Amino acid sequence: MMINETLKVLEERFSCGAFTDELPEKEKIEAIAKAAVESPSGTNAQPWRITVVTDKDLLSEMENETIRMMSQIPAYKGFYDVVISTGMKLFYNAPCMIVLPYDAQDPYAKFDCGIASQSIAVAAQSLRVASHIIAINEVAFMGEKAAYFKEKLQFPENYEFGLAVLLGNAAATKAPHQPDLEKIIYVG
Amino acid sequence: MMINETLKVLEERFSCGAFTDELPEKEKIEAIAKAAVESPSGTNAQPWRITVVTDKDLLSEMENETIRMMSQIPAYKGFYDVVISTGMKLFYNAPCMIVLPYDAQDPYAKFDCGIASQSIAVAAQSLRVASHIIAINEVAFMGEKAAYFKEKLQFPENYEFGLAVLLGNAAATKAPHQPDLEKIIYVG
Repeated sequence: MMINETLKVLEERFSCGAFTDELPEKEKIEAIAKAAVESPSGTNAQPWRITVVTDKDLLSEMENETIRMMSQIPAYKGFYDVVISTGMKLFYNAPCMIVLPYDAQDPYAKFDCGIASQSIAVAAQSLRVASHIIAINEVAFMGEKAAYFKEKLQFPENYEFGLAVLLGNAAATKAPHQPDLEKIIYVG
Repeated sequence: MMINETLKVLEERFSCGAFTDELPEKEKIEAIAKAAVESPSGTNAQPWRITVVTDKDLLSEMENETIRMMSQIPAYKGFYDVVISTGMKLFYNAPCMIVLPYDAQDPYAKFDCGIASQSIAVAAQSLRVASHIIAINEVAFMGEKAAYFKEKLQFPENYEFGLAVLLGNAAATKAPHQPDLEKIIYVG
């Protein structure tokens, strides 16, 4: 199989399950955010924001509200029970989170959010910054604190929470998932 | 700003508007498809397929059906008129298209499709293969030929068209779009 620097980065990227407290260098975070805004999007609408959150109190508040809301939504009850019984940190102790809100009036914006979040994960991996794309904290935007978080994170009007990417230094490495080549189909 | 091989690839990637007839080397296509299945997805569900289409007749059929359907959907009428009046090639003459159908029962699958399509675009750029992520051919899956295309492309049950990535050699290069750094917000 062909290989080069970037293919190696794509291959080595993994969803980090444990971060150290230490914030990655500012220059790295800036380079990662720049890669995000270089992403393609439908008709180049760029229907997202790249919101870099390093405010520890705000991250804790969001984590707590996510857990509280999970307890109230039947679909999340199973995961909630795991979090409570294991004391697992929902944001894996990450010191930085890039939140990607999206324009809810753009029918392609969820695809575009996915695209930009992978730019972030790939750029991070290339700088040996660990990442984890998450969606679970969407529930923090479904309760009575929704308006508060949207204001804190400066969501534009009509924007909703899409995805978030946790960033930091890995406290423990994890092997990337084994790629399932059977999901590739050739119609030639 | 920090730079490395991968950040340069992310920066140089552009949505190609004109491909040559020539199919990129098989080894490159395989490496690109492998990068796609290495992508992260919600709970690692991998709710997509990576369907590599190099059948010219099938690509033409899909292009023609897309144009025909565009003429029938009011939202696409303006773009349809442009295509007809300019004779523009909707698939930009690309010799290869990776279609990404997604599991319509997975609420995060559109995000995951976006993530995988950016893996494809980035891997391609690293190999100097040009790319263009498109969604317009979704309309070919909205008319009477929907079942035909789904069968030809081996969509699993309950899968719908998500995105497609055109691949090939660039007949003309285009500058990447200027990144809009104002879309980056720091909440620190």
